[in-house]
Amino acid sequence: MSTNPGRAVIAGIGHTEFSQDSGRSTLRLASEASIAALRDAGFASNEIDGSVTFSMDTNDELALIRSLGIPLLRFSARTRGGGGGANATVQLAAAAVESGQAEAVLIYRAFNERSQHRFGQPVRPSPDPAWNWAVPFGLDTPAKIYSLTFQRYMHDFGLTNEDFGRYTVVARDWAATNPNAQFFERPITLADHQASRWIVEPILRKLDCCLESDGGVALVVTSAERAEAHGADWVDILANGAMHLRDGHEMFNYFHDDLSWFDEGASLGADLYARAGLTPDDIDVAMIYENFSPIVFQQLEAFGFCGRGEARDFIADGHIGRGGSLPVNTNGGLLGEGYIHGMNNIVEGVRQLRGTAANQIDGARHVLVTAGRSGTILGARNR
Amino acid sequence: MSTNPGRAVIAGIGHTEFSQDSGRSTLRLASEASIAALRDAGFASNEIDGSVTFSMDTNDELALIRSLGIPLLRFSARTRGGGGGANATVQLAAAAVESGQAEAVLIYRAFNERSQHRFGQPVRPSPDPAWNWAVPFGLDTPAKIYSLTFQRYMHDFGLTNEDFGRYTVVARDWAATNPNAQFFERPITLADHQASRWIVEPILRKLDCCLESDGGVALVVTSAERAEAHGADWVDILANGAMHLRDGHEMFNYFHDDLSWFDEGASLGADLYARAGLTPDDIDVAMIYENFSPIVFQQLEAFGFCGRGEARDFIADGHIGRGGSLPVNTNGGLLGEGYIHGMNNIVEGVRQLRGTAANQIDGARHVLVTAGRSGTILGARNR
Repeated sequence: MSTNPGRAVIAGIGHTEFSQDSGRSTLRLASEASIAALRDAGFASNEIDGSVTFSMDTNDELALIRSLGIPLLRFSARTRGGGGGANATVQLAAAAVESGQAEAVLIYRAFNERSQHRFGQPVRPSPDPAWNWAVPFGLDTPAKIYSLTFQRYMHDFGLTNEDFGRYTVVARDWAATNPNAQFFERPITLADHQASRWIVEPILRKLDCCLESDGGVALVVTSAERAEAHGADWVDILANGAMHLRDGHEMFNYFHDDLSWFDEGASLGADLYARAGLTPDDIDVAMIYENFSPIVFQQLEAFGFCGRGEARDFIADGHIGRGGSLPVNTNGGLLGEGYIHGMNNIVEGVRQLRGTAANQIDGARHVLVTAGRSGTILGARNR
Repeated sequence: MSTNPGRAVIAGIGHTEFSQDSGRSTLRLASEASIAALRDAGFASNEIDGSVTFSMDTNDELALIRSLGIPLLRFSARTRGGGGGANATVQLAAAAVESGQAEAVLIYRAFNERSQHRFGQPVRPSPDPAWNWAVPFGLDTPAKIYSLTFQRYMHDFGLTNEDFGRYTVVARDWAATNPNAQFFERPITLADHQASRWIVEPILRKLDCCLESDGGVALVVTSAERAEAHGADWVDILANGAMHLRDGHEMFNYFHDDLSWFDEGASLGADLYARAGLTPDDIDVAMIYENFSPIVFQQLEAFGFCGRGEARDFIADGHIGRGGSLPVNTNGGLLGEGYIHGMNNIVEGVRQLRGTAANQIDGARHVLVTAGRSGTILGARNR
């Protein structure tokens, strides 16, 4: 497949170390990740003219461009919500490039999510009224909030927490051989998982939860033509988008008729495959956002890698691990490498297609990166 | 000039009343404005598949689509910062349409900015470090923050507060004949202005400040082809963009070498004119964001309507009022109609080009809408 020269691609990736205590400001983390991405892409600061980050990011664009020496931004956008919007950063950047609003867009996300503002801690009522139907009744942490839908999934298909543990064992196995991972060289057994303490009994144990992390990730998105001219080892964005359905909610997704089915993911998957002209069989590696292990099961089904209720066996049968038919979260995922709001999964997708991943999958040509409500199908430069 | 059928246009406009006390939730304001914009464009709820609002907006996209019956969003984006991003909403929506990420985008902005969260009240230190260079020293309201640069402008060009008053008199004159304006039928004289109390002496009086307001504004952006097919009375987006310069800041714009020159506006203006193939002489109406009256003077100069330091005479000579060479803020502006973070100025720009403004300028074909750091040149459908 030839690439339209004006089509947006990912030209550069960068990140800091992923840790529990960065010891420096989030602006510095954002700057370090950005410098790494610019160098990786072969772009100078003055060639960037657009930026994208999360609405939640506390790093002001103008503070960052001062830090980096970027002369100006003609385009600047932010995604809604949380990690579900990880791939929407790529969408906004690609829209800017493809519509001519910017030539090269810097995407960044950086936080001290372990050493400063921990997402896993109880929240207080918010201006969003939907939260106030639940928070005052004790649903005040993401683990509790998500567990209601995970419990329905367990009930419908007969899963126990041990089944979820089988995912964590795989993620930790990948992490064990990825030097960037916080759990590098620290694989676990299912018994270890089952010995970890309950967070929400009988649904989630500690080892089902992503790693609250400090760190920063950055990407450079530009046109294929410009990336090529800079000698960047770019990867193609074959399809990219977001999907928010009526009666959905970022976290309290309790309003759909069927709580054990990830409707947004299924609609998004259908959309992405159609746009890329691919099917789930064409995907060589899947990078699946996991704040908690059960959401991998729901997304494997929603994105068509197995039938409904079949993720338990799909994982138990070894499909997602080393040598499996669909390696999943080969960096160790957000449970094993670190939780940079899903952005580090995009970095791993790019590496797999460049052939530079720590746990490289031979001949990877197509990578699905999904955050449930936003996703990207990346394609190798020379497919 | 023929319009590329895939090019984005503004197909619909909608708003609530502008008041000091809406008496209802911001979600309801956003919904009412959105319904009005959809009806105006001739679009059904299920034809919208994208959304744009401000990062600061407290109305969650998913709450709004539930309220409106919109089945899904494939694209969702937010602008950075405050009212300086008003026209960036159109930029993000246009980028979505022109890149194929969405077919029709709903833009909304709604708040109870007078009856609930008043922007004019003192702020506390923020996570943005730049604020903390100034807030602890007493620069804790927008009026105080902006006044430092306004004072430099007064010093450099010999203006007094009376000069600023001449702008307010014009704005209130336009507002007096606009039934949507909060100051409908309430014109003032320069003596009235000079009798209003000081907010920041000797720079700003109360009548130099925008109207803290409750209300909502919505727009529908889609392709020219789709707008035409729906029978919408669309207007063309001839050029649109944002401009953030290194060493700039959303409010504390103290880091540029020259504090009396609005560098972002000048760069943005040059960019917009070049893209539209127009000059300042081609602009029939200018809608200029004014949190405070002096910023109109700075933008008149930055966007090339008069030379540097000449805005005082340009305004005193009657250019911006009724019968003037460049009617400015014909709705009464944010001082006279209401402060909906600049979004109501876009609505007025569309009305002028449709020929439906309360203070219609005969034969208006090109309208510049500027919020200083973001701007749009709108063109009449049949120029």
